[in-house]
Order: sequence, then structure tokens, then C-alpha cells
Amino acid sequence: MNKIKMIKGQNIIASQIAESNGPAILATNPSTLQTLEGRFFKASKADAERALQEATKAYKAYKNIEPARKAAFLRSIVEEITAIAPILAERAQAESGLPLPRLQGEVGRTTGQLNMFANLVEEGSWVDATIDTAQPDRLPLPKSDIRNMLVSIGPVVVFGASNFPLAFSVAGGDTASALAAGCPVVVKAHPAHLGTSALVGQAIAKAVEKTGMPKGVFSLLFDDGYEIGETLVKHPLTKAVAFTGSYRGGMALVKMNAQREQPIPVFAEMGSINPVVFLPQAIATQSEELAKKYAGSITLGAGQFCTNPGLLLAVKGEGLDNFKASLSRTLQEIPSATMLTEDIQKNYENLSAAIALENGVELISESRLINKDAKCQSIPRLATVSAKTFIGNAKLQEEIFGPYSLLVIAENNAELLKVVEQLHGQLTATLMAAPNELSQYSELVDVLVEKTGRLILNGVPTGVEVCSAMQHGGPFPSTNDSRFTSVGTKAIYRFARPVAWQDWEDALLPAALQAANPLKIWRSVDQVLTKD
Amino acid sequence: MNKIKMIKGQNIIASQIAESNGPAILATNPSTLQTLEGRFFKASKADAERALQEATKAYKAYKNIEPARKAAFLRSIVEEITAIAPILAERAQAESGLPLPRLQGEVGRTTGQLNMFANLVEEGSWVDATIDTAQPDRLPLPKSDIRNMLVSIGPVVVFGASNFPLAFSVAGGDTASALAAGCPVVVKAHPAHLGTSALVGQAIAKAVEKTGMPKGVFSLLFDDGYEIGETLVKHPLTKAVAFTGSYRGGMALVKMNAQREQPIPVFAEMGSINPVVFLPQAIATQSEELAKKYAGSITLGAGQFCTNPGLLLAVKGEGLDNFKASLSRTLQEIPSATMLTEDIQKNYENLSAAIALENGVELISESRLINKDAKCQSIPRLATVSAKTFIGNAKLQEEIFGPYSLLVIAENNAELLKVVEQLHGQLTATLMAAPNELSQYSELVDVLVEKTGRLILNGVPTGVEVCSAMQHGGPFPSTNDSRFTSVGTKAIYRFARPVAWQDWEDALLPAALQAANPLKIWRSVDQVLTKD
Repeated sequence: MNKIKMIKGQNIIASQIAESNGPAILATNPSTLQTLEGRFFKASKADAERALQEATKAYKAYKNIEPARKAAFLRSIVEEITAIAPILAERAQAESGLPLPRLQGEVGRTTGQLNMFANLVEEGSWVDATIDTAQPDRLPLPKSDIRNMLVSIGPVVVFGASNFPLAFSVAGGDTASALAAGCPVVVKAHPAHLGTSALVGQAIAKAVEKTGMPKGVFSLLFDDGYEIGETLVKHPLTKAVAFTGSYRGGMALVKMNAQREQPIPVFAEMGSINPVVFLPQAIATQSEELAKKYAGSITLGAGQFCTNPGLLLAVKGEGLDNFKASLSRTLQEIPSATMLTEDIQKNYENLSAAIALENGVELISESRLINKDAKCQSIPRLATVSAKTFIGNAKLQEEIFGPYSLLVIAENNAELLKVVEQLHGQLTATLMAAPNELSQYSELVDVLVEKTGRLILNGVPTGVEVCSAMQHGGPFPSTNDSRFTSVGTKAIYRFARPVAWQDWEDALLPAALQAANPLKIWRSVDQVLTKD
Repeated sequence: MNKIKMIKGQNIIASQIAESNGPAILATNPSTLQTLEGRFFKASKADAERALQEATKAYKAYKNIEPARKAAFLRSIVEEITAIAPILAERAQAESGLPLPRLQGEVGRTTGQLNMFANLVEEGSWVDATIDTAQPDRLPLPKSDIRNMLVSIGPVVVFGASNFPLAFSVAGGDTASALAAGCPVVVKAHPAHLGTSALVGQAIAKAVEKTGMPKGVFSLLFDDGYEIGETLVKHPLTKAVAFTGSYRGGMALVKMNAQREQPIPVFAEMGSINPVVFLPQAIATQSEELAKKYAGSITLGAGQFCTNPGLLLAVKGEGLDNFKASLSRTLQEIPSATMLTEDIQKNYENLSAAIALENGVELISESRLINKDAKCQSIPRLATVSAKTFIGNAKLQEEIFGPYSLLVIAENNAELLKVVEQLHGQLTATLMAAPNELSQYSELVDVLVEKTGRLILNGVPTGVEVCSAMQHGGPFPSTNDSRFTSVGTKAIYRFARPVAWQDWEDALLPAALQAANPLKIWRSVDQVLTKD
């Protein structure tokens, strides 16, 4: 296969390569800063308009197609992606600077997510069918028959994320869950992986064609600025928005939503610093092991994960001294890595330098192994600060996107609790505990639950399992709405709304609500869960 | 019982009568414009602060109390309300001008809602427990054990609604669902029913006392202006807001949320005009019957329902002529009724007069039976307009709160469809169809589903059943978030967020997630719904 010919740089509107005359945007390999094959075209406002018009048109048909066909469409995307998996991983590697095995794994994660949602919609119970049957003889008033299920919300705008060029991008979890819900998707490609986006976009377009979906169900637009994103988010035809990225970016979308005449659901996952609390016994007995484990987690993917452990908390003592020394040593021996983009690399350098200048913050470890032959390199850094100083300086809670962590040292358990009470909302919080130690910290855990979407015991926050129990979301500022998740099957609920039918003719009800339960799904009938 | 002594006009902060020095607010009987017994005190900003501080403190304990105790608390509120039911209904009647039987019924609806949520939390499955068990041998990576359930979101601010002095007020559906979710509640009383609010507030405070709940779980604040509402909505300790009322009021809260540093879930139910489509055969064969039915629905509660049928749609013809004549006649014979407040009465008069001046709008019926002995009287009105004019004038879609409806006459089915396509989001849409007629209108129904939270066949939209399948919500502007409902058991989901525990110690998990399923609730375990 000829890679250069495979990557088409035009926008994809309604599953078709669009005429593109906009300014060219080029793809860059961050590790060389050289331009990669392919010439991409900035979408125009008219392109955005057309994509949303086509999405709205397609919605009329797509929302009503039966679950099995929707599942077949998602599986067809899997096939198309799988067919180009090696090229895809290679291109994503070149564009992101992430290691090839990680990207090969990410292709699998992406297709796994699509398959998961295919299974979910095919099984069908996700629509939460709830039925209250009629009681015509009830006094003082008869009771109507009322049947409730989730329906799709309409066209969804998805923003590709820089740090997962596949799993949180064009055919990532947001797109998969929106398509599964019955929503057309317009993706704004992330400029950090244009070729990857184009390849995946073409794969989706092929699947649309092969499975006979309405073409407007998918569009992909390129932009290296903010114009197209803003146009899409503010457009009246957009019915929901999904975003994974920075606090600044996410809040910009939230503010744009406030300027809309009609507010819509916007889900912005804006990252967090993912506190890890090392309890005294654990750190006293496992300091070496914990240091190794966390050096790995801090530097995985060059620290460019939403769930990167950016904050380590512990009480002072011999165990902590050992842990600190060991973690410092280990991080010093981890070589620099290529950051996703020049901007991200610069931001990391600036922020980690600035934080080291804050009062009371001491940089205690910095890797010396800088790869001079590659560009966009950043090295792991570890800083430390006293709990007292940390509590007094909110700046120290800001996320530093990259292989960085701040170790906060408390005088005692009471001060440790105080630190936790001061924490902002988080995607995750982790506790490292010795056997039988956790039960002594119920108050601390209780506070962490209030602040967090996912709690982990004796593990690392990086590595987000894609499954039905996953919660990838959390109190502000980790997301703007803690009631939703962007990973796992529950991600679909961002894009669906309940509708009730009252005293409707059975044959004209959606299949999920008909008396005979033709889809054989789980339903609540007069408060009893049943498949009958 | 001495009514005057029973009604205490002080604010209730943390379930206790607070010292109140603020300006006095008086309660008015709208049908006489006379002052009613009781002297109420405007809450201060410091009161609002204290109520939220106490709510936050109480949250620490309240969120963790076992379901059975929460249910007992809700049922204790039922007992306290039931104990004063006659006084309550009588006072609500005096304050609202609504008929006494309606208010007696509303006491029942209010206690019914509280019991429904008591049953829901006691049964326990609402927390949506979802478990993915570990796969330690999975390749390439072991899978963690992940367990997810809903937890309460924190202190909720509830706004009492004018039109349901009991069921959508101090102990109404918002309060009941928030308390059931595990959230303390701070209620801003509606100034249109101060005494009713005070009585119910005292009932809740007693139940807090009797069942040993943390006192901060409930506060009730009075204000006849906007200051306290704004203070509460903008306060950082507020974690969610529930509101039922006007578009203007709801959007003011949505805008305040946009000004918060931390966005929170705000659910604003802002009403709608609830289109009713009379299909040709139905109107041809049942014109008299339909006119009677709808005259009743339009004037029920003096038209002061969120689900009042403010828009009637039909295709011209003999049947429609009969319907129109019959509805006009019937409405003319319905006497005036007392509106909830002077402001609401004036607004109704002004808006219904203004709409009659719009180009092409003709007022075709106005009751002549004005009760001259009572104040705040409004009469039913029916206006008509062509579909063409309606489509061209968005003003005609604005809600006129009161016993008013606009009959839109289409030339043919195609034009009827056009009208429906132009409609804004609605709480309800109703179709009146003859047997076998509905199936010919699948396109029309499909468009209505997109616009609506609840579809009704051959009924009236007024009368919202409180049950698990109810959807009382809908696309904007009927609410600001169509994914939620404010009536029925699903109302609880506004105030809960998922949390996942990963590889946690079984004994330290919330009971809902422990391996043995001690609460015996429905759970999804490795994608299988089970009570095991």
C-alpha cells in the first residue's frame, strides 16, 4: 500500500471527500520537527455548516435504524480500521512521538471500544426501558400506561484529543458512544495527528458506505486554529459536544455553550493531577517497590495521560525518605521522551520551571538522559513541597501535562487529611496501603470519594480499563459535569435523553417498549426488572 | 390547633427556627388581596451562607447513612405532613386561590412522592451498581476489579414553584429526590405561598429531629426578591440546583451558573405550550367530545400548569369548524378563576391581550363569567391563527401562563407537518387520533418525538402521573437539559454521580458494591443483571 496516496488531506463531509480550497495545514513529526507526508486543508465555516446540515438530515434516518444495523456499522468501522492497523499505528507513531507498541495497543483499544458499543446496542437494554402499565380502575383517577426509553439527542460534535491519537480521537470513545446512541458525529480533528485522523476518517466513511448508513452520519473537519471548533459548538444544529483536553480548552467550550441561545450538553474532560496517597505502613515497608511502580506511571506515555499521577502525598518518616530517594534515582535514569507537540513540550518546560520557583518548592529529581538526536524532548521531573506550603498555594494544584509529579510531605496524618480536604475535583485518587491499613483511614477515604471519579487501591491511576463499570470523569475541574463518564459503556448516556409515550398504540411504539418485548431486552415493568 | 401560632415566619436554618431580623414579608390571599396570618422574614445573605455551611457539614454524615434510615426519614416527613394535612390544604388554598379539593389532592401527591422515593432508596437498586470483576490472568495485561455506583452530589438548592404550593415546593419532588439521593436541601420558598412553605418546613424539621438526621440536611429561606436565590445559586458550596418556573427565571439561573467558577448541574423546568394535534378523522368524528375534554384541560387550575395545552393544531374542515365553535362556546361558559398571584394575573392579561394584537391572530372566545366579588380573576381565552402566520411569527410560540390556548389552522396535512417542524422543545405533545389513524402520521410523530419529553395519545397533557416511567422534561426551552426529569423516580439522577472503586478491599466498599450483595439489590455483574 502506498501511504502517501492513502492519506487524503481533504475534509470529509457526509462521509465523502470534500472539495477543499482552504489554507494547507501540514503534519509534523515531533521527534524530528520534519513535515510528514500529506497536505491537509483547513475547513471553512461553510464546511462546518454543511457537515451539520448533513448530520441533521442523516439524523432523521439514523436515529430510527434498528440496533442490529447500528452494531453492524460499528463493527464495519472495526474492520476498516483493522485493515489499515499497521499503517495507522505507524503514522500515529510518527505524528505523536509515542512508542509504536503503545499505538499498536491503542488501535486495539479503539476497535475494542467500537466492538463494546456494538455489543451494547445490539443487546439493547441500555435504553433503560421503563414501563408503568395502565390501571383503568384506579381511584380517584385511572392510571395511564406510560413507557419510557432513551432516544438519541441529535448531532454530536467531537473534539479529537492530542494524547490518544486513536482511542480519544476520530473513532475514539466519544465517536463510538455517540454513534451507538444514534447520533451523527462531526469530528474536529486534532492538528497534532492529521494523517491519523484522515486515515481513520476514511475508514469510517468506507464503513458508512458498506453498511448503507445515511452519509451525513459522519464528517471530519481540519483546523489548526479555533474557528471551526467555535463554529461547530455555537451552531444551533449541534445538540451535544464531547471534548477531552486541557482545562483552558474545556472551559472555553463551556463558555461558548453559555453564549448559545439554546444550551446543550457539553462534556469536557479537562484532566487532573490524580493524587496518590501513600499510607505510612505501605511506604515504610514497600518504599523501593512503590518508587519503581510510580516512576513507571509518572513517565508512561511521557506523562501525557489525563490520569497521570501528578501529586504524591505522604507523611514524613524514614519510609518516605527512602521512597523519595529511590523515586528520585529511578526518574533520573529514565531517558527523555518525545512530547506530542512542540507547544506541549514548551508548556511542560515552562510550567515545570515556573513551579520550581514557587516558594517552598524544591526540584529534587530531573533525568539527565536527554536524547540530543531527537526534538521535542522532555525529561521526568520530581519536586517536593511541605503540606503546609501546598495548602496555602492553589497554583501547586494546577496540572503540569507531562512526566512531572509533586511530592507533598505532611507532618502527620492530620495534616495529610487537611491536604486532601483542600484538593480540587479529580478523575482519580489512589491509595497505597499495607494489608489492614486502609480501614484506619475511613475519614480520609470519605473525603477522597467526594473529590473523585475513581478510587484505586494499590495500583496506578494510568491505564483506564474500558468496561461497563469504568468512571472516567469526576468533580470539577476534572470535568464540567461529574454525572457522566467518557470511558466505558456509560459514556453513551451523555448523548441520550428519555422520552415517555403515554397510552400509545402498541404497534406504533418503538420496539423496545412494545408489550411483547420483541427485542428481548431487560426492562422495568411496574417496578420489576424482567426480560418478559 | 391554632393556625396563627402554628405558622412561624422565621427562616428555618439547619432544621431550626432561626433568629430573623430581616424585613417582614406578608402573605396575601389572591382572591381577596387581603393579608393572611403570619409574618415572614426575608433571609439575609448571612442566613444563606449559614444554611449552606450547615448543609455541607450535614452532608458528611447524611450521604453515608444506610438506605433504610433515609427511607424512614422520608416517611417521617410524610407523617408530619399528614398530621397537618387539613390545615395545610386550607392554608395553600388561601394563598394560591386554587380549589380546596385540588390542594387536598396535592397533599396526597406530595406525600405519595415522598413515599415513592422512600421505597426507591429502600429497595436500593437505583444506585446502578455495576461490577466488572478482576481477570488476573488476562493477557497482555491483567484486568482490575472495578465497581461503580451512584453517590450523592452534595447540597442542593431547590426553588419552590408558584403553581404547586405543595408538590413542587418545600417538600415537593425536587426536595424528595434530592434527600433520597443523599443530598441536603436548602429551599428558597416561593413568596406566593409563604405560610404553606413555613408549615411544610416545620414538618420536615420535625422529621429531621424525630429520625435523628443531621440537622443541616434541611433549611428554608424566605425572600420576596432575587437576592437570596442568586446568593444560593452562585455559592461555591451549592452542588446542584432544581427549579420549576418561568423561562425568564430558569434562564437567569442558567446564566448565573455560567458565572460560577465551578459549573454545577442546574435543572430548570421552564414550561412549554404543549402542542395538541387533532388528526382529521378524530376531529371529524369527535369534535364535540374533544372540545369538552380540552376546555377542561385548558382551564384546569386556571391554566396554571407547565403542561397546559397552549397550542391546538388541526387541518381546516367541517370537523374543525364544529370543534372550534364548540370549544369557544364551552370556554365562554367557564367562570373566571383566581390566579396564583397579582403578578401572574396581570401577566396573563397583558400577554393574552398582546397576542391578540399580533397580525393574523383572532380572539374567538372569552368567557363572560367574571366573578366580580373576587380579586385576581382571569377568564379563559381562545385565539386562532393560520398555520402560515404561526410559522412566520416565533412570538406566537411564547407561553402564556394561564387558561389560554391558540388554535392553529393548517390548510392540509403537509402544512400541519410544517408547523410541527417549527415547534420549539416541549414538555409534552399530544395526538388525538381516530382508531387506525395514527399509523398514517409516522413522519409527524417522528418530528414530535424530536421536540418532546412525553407523547400522549388521546388524552390531555395536564395531570402528570408520578411514576417510574414518567418523563417531565424535554428539549430546550422546556428545560435546559433534556436528559433529566423532575417528576418520577428518575428525578433522583439529577443529584447523583458515578464513582468507581478499583481493586478495593471488599469490606471497605459501600455495601451496594460488596461481593455478597448484602443489600440484595439488582446489579450488573460482568454484564449480567443479577441480585446475587
